[in-house]
Amino acid sequence: MSEFHLRTLELIDAGRELYRMGMVPATSGNFSARMSDGNIAITVSGRHKGKLTAQDIMLVDAAGQSYDERRPSAETLLHVQIYRRFPDAAFVLHPHSVHATLLSRLRDDCVVLQDYELLKAFPGVDTHCCEVRIPIFDNDQDIARLATAVDTGLPDGAPGYLIRGHGFYTWGNSIEDALRHVEAFEFLFECEMRLKGVTP
Amino acid sequence: MSEFHLRTLELIDAGRELYRMGMVPATSGNFSARMSDGNIAITVSGRHKGKLTAQDIMLVDAAGQSYDERRPSAETLLHVQIYRRFPDAAFVLHPHSVHATLLSRLRDDCVVLQDYELLKAFPGVDTHCCEVRIPIFDNDQDIARLATAVDTGLPDGAPGYLIRGHGFYTWGNSIEDALRHVEAFEFLFECEMRLKGVTP
Amino acid sequence: MSEFHLRTLELIDAGRELYRMGMVPATSGNFSARMSDGNIAITVSGRHKGKLTAQDIMLVDAAGQSYDERRPSAETLLHVQIYRRFPDAAFVLHPHSVHATLLSRLRDDCVVLQDYELLKAFPGVDTHCCEVRIPIFDNDQDIARLATAVDTGLPDGAPGYLIRGHGFYTWGNSIEDALRHVEAFEFLFECEMRLKGVTP
Amino acid sequence: MSEFHLRTLELIDAGRELYRMGMVPATSGNFSARMSDGNIAITVSGRHKGKLTAQDIMLVDAAGQSYDERRPSAETLLHVQIYRRFPDAAFVLHPHSVHATLLSRLRDDCVVLQDYELLKAFPGVDTHCCEVRIPIFDNDQDIARLATAVDTGLPDGAPGYLIRGHGFYTWGNSIEDALRHVEAFEFLFECEMRLKGVTP
Repeated sequence: MSEFHLRTLELIDAGRELYRMGMVPATSGNFSARMSDGNIAITVSGRHKGKLTAQDIMLVDAAGQSYDERRPSAETLLHVQIYRRFPDAAFVLHPHSVHATLLSRLRDDCVVLQDYELLKAFPGVDTHCCEVRIPIFDNDQDIARLATAVDTGLPDGAPGYLIRGHGFYTWGNSIEDALRHVEAFEFLFECEMRLKGVTP
Repeated sequence: MSEFHLRTLELIDAGRELYRMGMVPATSGNFSARMSDGNIAITVSGRHKGKLTAQDIMLVDAAGQSYDERRPSAETLLHVQIYRRFPDAAFVLHPHSVHATLLSRLRDDCVVLQDYELLKAFPGVDTHCCEVRIPIFDNDQDIARLATAVDTGLPDGAPGYLIRGHGFYTWGNSIEDALRHVEAFEFLFECEMRLKGVTP
Repeated sequence: MSEFHLRTLELIDAGRELYRMGMVPATSGNFSARMSDGNIAITVSGRHKGKLTAQDIMLVDAAGQSYDERRPSAETLLHVQIYRRFPDAAFVLHPHSVHATLLSRLRDDCVVLQDYELLKAFPGVDTHCCEVRIPIFDNDQDIARLATAVDTGLPDGAPGYLIRGHGFYTWGNSIEDALRHVEAFEFLFECEMRLKGVTP
Repeated sequence: MSEFHLRTLELIDAGRELYRMGMVPATSGNFSARMSDGNIAITVSGRHKGKLTAQDIMLVDAAGQSYDERRPSAETLLHVQIYRRFPDAAFVLHPHSVHATLLSRLRDDCVVLQDYELLKAFPGVDTHCCEVRIPIFDNDQDIARLATAVDTGLPDGAPGYLIRGHGFYTWGNSIEDALRHVEAFEFLFECEMRLKGVTP
């Protein structure tokens, strides 16, 4: 089986799991994998992320340019930015959950997470005592401009970031890594939202 | 396979998905599809929407009159109104979710949605910056009167509407379109409800 | 297939559905069906309600007395009371949901439901405008005494009742009827709980 | 089938159920079973708890020492403490749910549960009127020190305990017992969190 076919199967499975968790409603979200030659396998724009087929994953080059007439995800340049910035990143996932959407609207420029054991799910974190800051970038329909803003504002150690009113981006060295980060973020964002509902 | 049989299978599948999402509890909700000859395939009144069979979908004419002794959904005239108003609409879905029910009771005459990336799931919306207004109509057991009120109050560009204490209506040119609108509405209504719970 | 075997299969299926909905956690809840000879098929005490087998359903007489050495649900007398009071009742379901548990602790002697279209899921209700009162009885480990309190306090038209901190009881002329009432109550109790969280 | 193989299958199934309930996100949580010879079958560190295979369960001795080069759960000593303290405990489960995490951060040194019928799911509790106190221990990355703190602070009759920001531990004489305790705790913690959201 070719590398592209393997990555396609992994993205299809990830889509099914994320859809089941309610994290890619109404064809929102997009996913990608970096191939060993630098090309990127990425979801075609506008597809149902819980019912992806091989026809819904296409190849773009390292700059995000399509090799055929299909249109990749409108946010392809955000995937490109992450692969450029993090040489080890092999998968990028962009889910679009209720908790992430709301938290990104309620906080200013970052979400500060601390005293959660689950912070240890992120690379380089080995204690709940630390403070993990997740940056929030203002939403922008000009994706090139948004990618530049992310590249400028994203600290090297960040495990992901939020776009205001628009879900979050995270990545990993394997599909298992990337999905673990999604689950950790979703848990922590839900915790923060629920805390806000019960504390003055 | 006949057109009616195809539409029936699509409505059965949609029902199973919407039931799984908790959006048609206790036999609530109803669904329909417009055939190429103008007749409407619609759910029989009072059936379990998550366990529909071919016997639970019946044919009515463009005015909502049954061709046999079975009773179509009590709200057939609301489906008829949508098909008359929107010549491209091929499917109408009426889910009955907790968030839609509550939001329709908490707001006056409309729900205003803005700054959500997911607004782009609706036709004609290409930025999160716009303001989408979803009208709310008071519930009424006289469905002909309610259909007239909807026809009068519904702007041409609206992707759906709420009935107070009674879920929402949305439609699409395909079953995939209509389901995408349902998921987008449910996400946005949940966001609005949760925001209300955490902001003064 | 014998009547007892048919009822057993229906109760097993109902248990699986209610468990999936999170309404019978930790072996809570109990279910029964009345046979045409007046005997009652009821869940054995302490079984996992989502994984019932034929061995977990036993027969008791119309007074709730076991025909063998097995112990029926500790709350068998509450089922007996309902069958005596409502001659048409063929199934009794007692789920134990979070929303029912909480609402029964937050209200005094009843939950008042109005302006919900879903009220029409209950027998005899044909408009959302009416007011449906669901009585709440204080919990009591003396089940005979609790059954008497229920019999005294339960109006003839009530579609169900709550026990404080202890879920609710509802019934129907068929398993479909009884499950429809469960879904309607759960939806309405969730609505009331969420409304309480967002209104002063 | 060997005793180890049987316990392994039970832990794999329990993991799948707990993952489905959202209680072991992002590889969090860990599970174990005590063998008749005193050895402990326990989850290998860092595995996906919803997709465990036989390779993800390993054997340690009664003091928690591995028999091979694999690394057992980082919290193995907490399992050891429970087995030493409770001679009848055969299974220990450590789920990591949102409600448990939040409640452990909002309360001081214990969660007090009362007036819930579901308290009867715990051993030795036969009425909703009693008060069950679930101790909360501060999180600590030094697991030996945390195990000592638990051993000192845990009353003999406690059915489980919380670690602040870090889920809960519970146990049972069979996997069914242990899972019943998990479901009861989760229900009760969710109730307490939701009550906090609606009461002043």
